[in-house]
Amino acid sequence: MDMLSFQLVREDERPLYEQLYHQIRQEIIEGRLPYGAKLPSKRKLGQFLSLSQTTIELAYQQLVAEGYVESLPRKGFFVMAYEELAYIKKEEGELHTTAEETESVAYDFHPSLVDASSFPFSRFRKHAKDIIDDSHQELVSLGHPQGDLVLREEIATYLYHSRGVICSTEQIIVGSGVEQLLPLLVLLLKEHRYYGVEDPGYHSVRSIVESHGRKTVPIPVDVNGIVVRQLESSNAELMYVTPAHQFPTGSILSINRRRQLLNWAGTDSSRYIIEDDYDSEFRYSGKPIPSLHSMGADKVIYLSTFSKSLMPSLRIGYMVLPKALLKQYQQEFSYHTSSVSRIDQHILARFMKVDFEKHLNRMRKIYRRKLELLTSLLRPAAPSIAVSGDSTGLHVLLTIANGMTEEELIESARRVSIDVYGLSQYSRNTLPDQLPQIVLGFASLSEEELSSGIYLLLKAWKLH
Amino acid sequence: MDMLSFQLVREDERPLYEQLYHQIRQEIIEGRLPYGAKLPSKRKLGQFLSLSQTTIELAYQQLVAEGYVESLPRKGFFVMAYEELAYIKKEEGELHTTAEETESVAYDFHPSLVDASSFPFSRFRKHAKDIIDDSHQELVSLGHPQGDLVLREEIATYLYHSRGVICSTEQIIVGSGVEQLLPLLVLLLKEHRYYGVEDPGYHSVRSIVESHGRKTVPIPVDVNGIVVRQLESSNAELMYVTPAHQFPTGSILSINRRRQLLNWAGTDSSRYIIEDDYDSEFRYSGKPIPSLHSMGADKVIYLSTFSKSLMPSLRIGYMVLPKALLKQYQQEFSYHTSSVSRIDQHILARFMKVDFEKHLNRMRKIYRRKLELLTSLLRPAAPSIAVSGDSTGLHVLLTIANGMTEEELIESARRVSIDVYGLSQYSRNTLPDQLPQIVLGFASLSEEELSSGIYLLLKAWKLH
Repeated sequence: MDMLSFQLVREDERPLYEQLYHQIRQEIIEGRLPYGAKLPSKRKLGQFLSLSQTTIELAYQQLVAEGYVESLPRKGFFVMAYEELAYIKKEEGELHTTAEETESVAYDFHPSLVDASSFPFSRFRKHAKDIIDDSHQELVSLGHPQGDLVLREEIATYLYHSRGVICSTEQIIVGSGVEQLLPLLVLLLKEHRYYGVEDPGYHSVRSIVESHGRKTVPIPVDVNGIVVRQLESSNAELMYVTPAHQFPTGSILSINRRRQLLNWAGTDSSRYIIEDDYDSEFRYSGKPIPSLHSMGADKVIYLSTFSKSLMPSLRIGYMVLPKALLKQYQQEFSYHTSSVSRIDQHILARFMKVDFEKHLNRMRKIYRRKLELLTSLLRPAAPSIAVSGDSTGLHVLLTIANGMTEEELIESARRVSIDVYGLSQYSRNTLPDQLPQIVLGFASLSEEELSSGIYLLLKAWKLH
Repeated sequence: MDMLSFQLVREDERPLYEQLYHQIRQEIIEGRLPYGAKLPSKRKLGQFLSLSQTTIELAYQQLVAEGYVESLPRKGFFVMAYEELAYIKKEEGELHTTAEETESVAYDFHPSLVDASSFPFSRFRKHAKDIIDDSHQELVSLGHPQGDLVLREEIATYLYHSRGVICSTEQIIVGSGVEQLLPLLVLLLKEHRYYGVEDPGYHSVRSIVESHGRKTVPIPVDVNGIVVRQLESSNAELMYVTPAHQFPTGSILSINRRRQLLNWAGTDSSRYIIEDDYDSEFRYSGKPIPSLHSMGADKVIYLSTFSKSLMPSLRIGYMVLPKALLKQYQQEFSYHTSSVSRIDQHILARFMKVDFEKHLNRMRKIYRRKLELLTSLLRPAAPSIAVSGDSTGLHVLLTIANGMTEEELIESARRVSIDVYGLSQYSRNTLPDQLPQIVLGFASLSEEELSSGIYLLLKAWKLH
């Protein structure tokens, strides 16, 4: 790399790291930095250009994020093959919804992301290979329509010990996640027309319910979770809730509200609560809060997933049906086969048996450290930024008083290559006139990325 | 084993093999034949008891099928651990729908079964391990909602070369099979109320369509496939067909009917044909018949699966959407994530790239040999048994004129531990007054099992 050729202008309106990023990128695109070339170390380039190592780090990270450069631990930064990028470009006509095919950002605070770099690949590989080695003919044919018994046994044991959920293996239905299980549930509950849903809450839950011709009834959420009084005065016959860590506000359904909610369900035999316990594995402070299911198993349909606790791309979740619905399910879904590969079911069962508890404890520590770092990085911006919803899970809620609107907060972050997500996109109703709020997922970023990302974010928000 | 203790009575109404089976089973249950004990060779036991080796083989096979004994190639027959059986028994309260939990039969001619013993485990393992070794962080997070590009590229290439289907990768949606893809389609086609379905045809298709509040319109099937004239005079707005090998009758949609069907779809812009091409990989005679899609891509939604060509338990299928529906799909299913594990998608893509064609050619030979054996075993029973639907796929249709009703055919087979399936269960209407028909899947049985199974079957049907 001809470092002499770089033209960095301190007076430019673009920050220095961005100018540096653009110039290196141009070198790669025009072939002057060929595939495999090593970039100078951050220290060396910083000295040469009289820039701080943080500036170099920011430029390099953006190149990594966009796939121009790869970072090899303890070796340095290397130019990637440009043809591979050209190949990705070919697909630009495609649907733009995944990271690999949209314009990359350097820092993505999306709440659905997990820490992929800490995933225990070596243990997972070991179990996967053992199962694949052992898997002979019997795993080729279809298994149990609700999921193989070996996996349902592990799930039942886990739920009993960790979430206070008492159920038999025959109440468990293994599927590809909420997106595939919720439609089954809607079809099962034929007579139910009105679904209470949290507002703000998951888009996909609303979309699934409505695409099946049912109505959703938005129930507002405050610091104690859903406002059950509003549910009581609605025509909802079911209530979908995330009591352990409301998505996206992060509030925990209070004990009082839990009792109210179960009472609401108890007054009519056809009423049910759908409890989505999506990230309760990661509770950082206070006493563990048992599931709603543990307080009223007859009235609660329990849903959960391995997307947060293991990996989103595994596509395995499950639901626990109350006994009253089970017989009907088994009669009406006799044509059903589980949507999850049997080999994957057996790998997961083995992982759960041997490594799951250890893995969760380790991830809880990693996420707690990230959360503590995030909170400490945001502390200097108090009281202009207030953090809430931070006792559990992989995202927090920021309430921001710097004079910007939600749209301006998102736009200004975007200009420094950071994606953040406003609370309003999770709500159907216009939110009341209040301070703008941002849903901030922290799980996928390394501690270094959190530091530089929050540094840039506070600067973009003029809170630094 | 104390062979002297066996009491076999030639005058008993139970056949000799069944008496032998019961006595060995009793020895195992009562612990006189312990775990791991080797049974005498068929030759030795046959000589000792003055029985034919076929009789011994039948008894041993039934013990194997029920899990009392395992057969190790070139080593012999060994007693299994009885506790494992006890463990299976524990689950008897569970739903009775899978092979492992229902009373086993010695010979199951179910049309959904495949040849698990010929599955190329060593190649599959190799690719699985390579992918698992290579899979790092990038496979942890969610991939493309329609399935990863690498797999869609392999599918597009395969479809082009093998089925004459011309489509771009963005028209392909990867899912867990028809059961998960068909509901998506029903939700997408919001305005369509009336689905033409083949009669006889797949149960599950009818169930899925109706559970979503749509109506099915049964369209009869004859030797040339569906009777399009009947479709024309119905109110159906869509037609679900299996043109390459109608399930379950095995008829092929004639060229004339194909044209008629496409004309029917062409007369109204909202009409579509859903082509389920579930087992067309295995065509044994005549020229390959291209897909309906290749004759009218705008009007055909193409569905297929790897359940027949690889294994049912993989749970991977796909659909190809016409361009007119694609934009709407991408807008309305923006919340959708693919239901298939990304690691599995990449393993399958690798398998398709390297081994799929070879694998299909090998399996086609294996299945053709089994089909030829089956046909030759049934030939002596002609004209009391007529075989049809045997040019493609993994099942044939038997038309039987021995004076028995369909129910009697099934019952008499069941008494010699054989499961066969009557055509009437695939039809909603009472079939016209005609000879009873049996849908006979042959894929999962070995050549020895086919020989002894058909021998017993013809005997049970008094055609021997």
